Amino acid sequence: MRLLTPTTRISRRDILLAASVALPGCASSPRVEPRGPEEEGARRARGSNSTRFVGVSSGPWRVIDIRAVRGASIPMAPFVDVLSGKDDQRSSAWALHGVASHGRYTTRQEKTALDAVTPQLGRPEATHAALIPIRKTRAWWDLTQDERRAVFEERGRHIAKSLQYLPRIARKLYHARDLGEPFDFLTWFEFAPADGPAFDELLGALRAGEEWSFVEREVELRLQRA
Amino acid sequence: MRLLTPTTRISRRDILLAASVALPGCASSPRVEPRGPEEEGARRARGSNSTRFVGVSSGPWRVIDIRAVRGASIPMAPFVDVLSGKDDQRSSAWALHGVASHGRYTTRQEKTALDAVTPQLGRPEATHAALIPIRKTRAWWDLTQDERRAVFEERGRHIAKSLQYLPRIARKLYHARDLGEPFDFLTWFEFAPADGPAFDELLGALRAGEEWSFVEREVELRLQRA
Repeated sequence: MRLLTPTTRISRRDILLAASVALPGCASSPRVEPRGPEEEGARRARGSNSTRFVGVSSGPWRVIDIRAVRGASIPMAPFVDVLSGKDDQRSSAWALHGVASHGRYTTRQEKTALDAVTPQLGRPEATHAALIPIRKTRAWWDLTQDERRAVFEERGRHIAKSLQYLPRIARKLYHARDLGEPFDFLTWFEFAPADGPAFDELLGALRAGEEWSFVEREVELRLQRA
Repeated sequence: MRLLTPTTRISRRDILLAASVALPGCASSPRVEPRGPEEEGARRARGSNSTRFVGVSSGPWRVIDIRAVRGASIPMAPFVDVLSGKDDQRSSAWALHGVASHGRYTTRQEKTALDAVTPQLGRPEATHAALIPIRKTRAWWDLTQDERRAVFEERGRHIAKSLQYLPRIARKLYHARDLGEPFDFLTWFEFAPADGPAFDELLGALRAGEEWSFVEREVELRLQRA
């Protein structure tokens, strides 16, 4: 059930090709800083939602596999670390940046149902993880909100399908499109080894739907707690 | 009709206080770069949606007024320049960064109605402009999509009200919240001097509604082509 769609294992050549990552760049303009304690607080709170997934030589998550599900892969790395906005000074082979933003589609009723069964990240038994960066097509982003919602849920049952796998599969979504990143979303999953087959099934279900026809690049990183 | 809500004119002390802008910072981690010509193209297209409004000593837009409508103002500057993602190396007193992203609320029907009467930016007669940075409250962002949409349009008629002022008032919205900016949105307006009163009326109408109760910081910059 795992590979419902064609996937490509990355070769050594792919790794070398993909390894042309940019050097750290400098922001060029001063920014308007927030003023006053409550604004500082608001800014800090936002900063804490900014997350970098980095490919590193040692870290808390050992890489089992990195493969391109659609489009180009990313460079192999032996470990992945997850850094918050503040502590992102670590040297790394690559970095994927995202922001845990507000929900774009979920209704109150759906959110209530999800919240009731959504587990926290970091459960001791959830020693397996996956990071799935996805970029959607121009055609997707040219849809209006009602059209995207119809593909996502009214027809696609994205939330309804995901609900069936809760609380087994913990999940956190990071938005990256507005950051100018190469991916639009980074989704992080955590689960116990025994729930690995259920996770594969969930991926298969999501990739079988209409929504996935709007995916132009997807990479799957499988990880295990080091 | 212009000042339906209490506003604060900035004082010299405010300007000095607000002038504590940060120095340009350095991004710290390498990024995964896009690969392949079509991905480069996609990245460039996104980059072109990234815009910086900067306060400068000379530029295409002369500042008539900067005032805090709610919360703290931003530093005064004699001119404003509008820079695209690539040419943001210009030295400036302050910079506000935003991304012209996809619509978050508009339905296909509404978009069709808007597109039919929406003018381009840069009309020769539109020598007046306004830049309105806004930050919404935590309570707003804690609403779900259906709740935000209800405040925005079903009850607030944000789109319906704006439609009445088209094609007189050209408008472009930039998203900034996910970028960790001090404002959530930057809205840019352009209009002919004769349509100034209509623009004031539109601002008054938007600020009179329920949606505006979720605004915690708003600054209004009035500009004239230099």
